[in-house]
Amino acid sequence: MSPGGRRAGDSGTRTAILLAAQQAFGDQGYGPTSVRAVARAAGVDPSLVLHFFGSKDGLFEAALELPMDPAVVVAGLLQGDPEDLGERAVRGFLGVWDTGPAPGTMLTLLRSAVSHPDSADRLRALLLRAILLPLAVAAGREDPERRAALLASQIAGLALARYVLRLEPLASATPDELAPLIGPTLQRYLTGELG
Amino acid sequence: MSPGGRRAGDSGTRTAILLAAQQAFGDQGYGPTSVRAVARAAGVDPSLVLHFFGSKDGLFEAALELPMDPAVVVAGLLQGDPEDLGERAVRGFLGVWDTGPAPGTMLTLLRSAVSHPDSADRLRALLLRAILLPLAVAAGREDPERRAALLASQIAGLALARYVLRLEPLASATPDELAPLIGPTLQRYLTGELG
Repeated sequence: MSPGGRRAGDSGTRTAILLAAQQAFGDQGYGPTSVRAVARAAGVDPSLVLHFFGSKDGLFEAALELPMDPAVVVAGLLQGDPEDLGERAVRGFLGVWDTGPAPGTMLTLLRSAVSHPDSADRLRALLLRAILLPLAVAAGREDPERRAALLASQIAGLALARYVLRLEPLASATPDELAPLIGPTLQRYLTGELG
Repeated sequence: MSPGGRRAGDSGTRTAILLAAQQAFGDQGYGPTSVRAVARAAGVDPSLVLHFFGSKDGLFEAALELPMDPAVVVAGLLQGDPEDLGERAVRGFLGVWDTGPAPGTMLTLLRSAVSHPDSADRLRALLLRAILLPLAVAAGREDPERRAALLASQIAGLALARYVLRLEPLASATPDELAPLIGPTLQRYLTGELG
C-alpha cells in the first residue's frame, strides 16, 4: 500500500468500473442505473465505486469524461486572448473527448441523452450550467443564457457528427484542423453581435 | 373511390402507418425493421404500405419527415439572395421538422441514428448526400464535402438542442427568431473563408 492508501491495480479497477458505468448509463439511462449494479458488473464491491467516484453523480460525470471540476476547465479556457476563446474551446472539448480511456464515451453520452429524458436533464445540467453558461457569463456580453444554448448546439452537433455519424472529414480531422473551422462559430456565439 | 384509386380515410391510414414506422425505426433501427412488421403494427396489409411509400427506403424517408424529393428542397433554398442562403436553410429545416404530423419525428430520427449504426448510415446518406452536399456544391466554393459536413454538424446540433435536450431559449424560439442566430453560421460554412 502506498501512503495514500492506493493499491497497485487501482488504475485497472477504476477503468473496469468506468466501462461498466458507461455500458449501464448508455443502455438504461441515468435513473435506473445503480452504484450497486455497476459494481456487480465490474466485479467489485460497491464501496470501491464510492471510494473512486464519491457518488452516483460523480460516477456519471466520470463516465461521460467530463472533467471533475468544471470551474477549472472554464478558468483554463478564459486564459489567453479573448479573441481566440472559440478556437481554444474547440481544442479543449475535443482534447477531453478524443483521449478518454474508452473510445465510445461520446457515443455513450449521446445515446443516453437521446434515449432517456433523465439523462438529457443531467447532460443539460453538466454541460450547460457547469461549463457553457459560466463561459458565456465570463465573456461579458448580453443574454448569456441564449449564448450558452447556441454554444451547446454547435458543440453537441460537432460531437454527433464526429463520433456518432462519423462524417468525413470531421471524423478524422485533428483538433488543430477543426479549431479554425468551428472556432469562429463559437466565438460569435460567445462575443459576437447576434442581431 | 376517387378516380385516382384513393379512398376516404387514406390520410388516417397513412398517418397510422407513419406512426408505426417511426416507432419501429426508433426502437430497432433501420436494419431489423420490416415493411411487414410496420404493416402489422398499423393494422394494414403490407401492400398498402408499399402503395403509400413505394419501398422500405421510402417509408424510412417519410418517417423521418424528409421531403420526398430533396432536389426540390435544394432548388427552393437556392432561389433568392445568395447572401441569405444560411437563414433560408434554418427556416427551411425548422419548417419541415416543426410541422410534421408526429411531434417526435426528430427525436425518432436522432434516437435511431445514435443507437443503430445502420440508421446513422441512412441519415448520413439522406441528409448529407441528398441535401447538404448538393447545396454546398451549388454555393460554388472550394471543398464542398467539408462544407457539407460542417453544415451537418450545426444542423444536427440544432435539432439535438431543440428537440432532444430542449435547451431554452432554443426549444421555444420561432424559426424567425432562430434564423438570424444560426443563419450566419450556415452561411459561413456554405460560402465563407474557412481558413
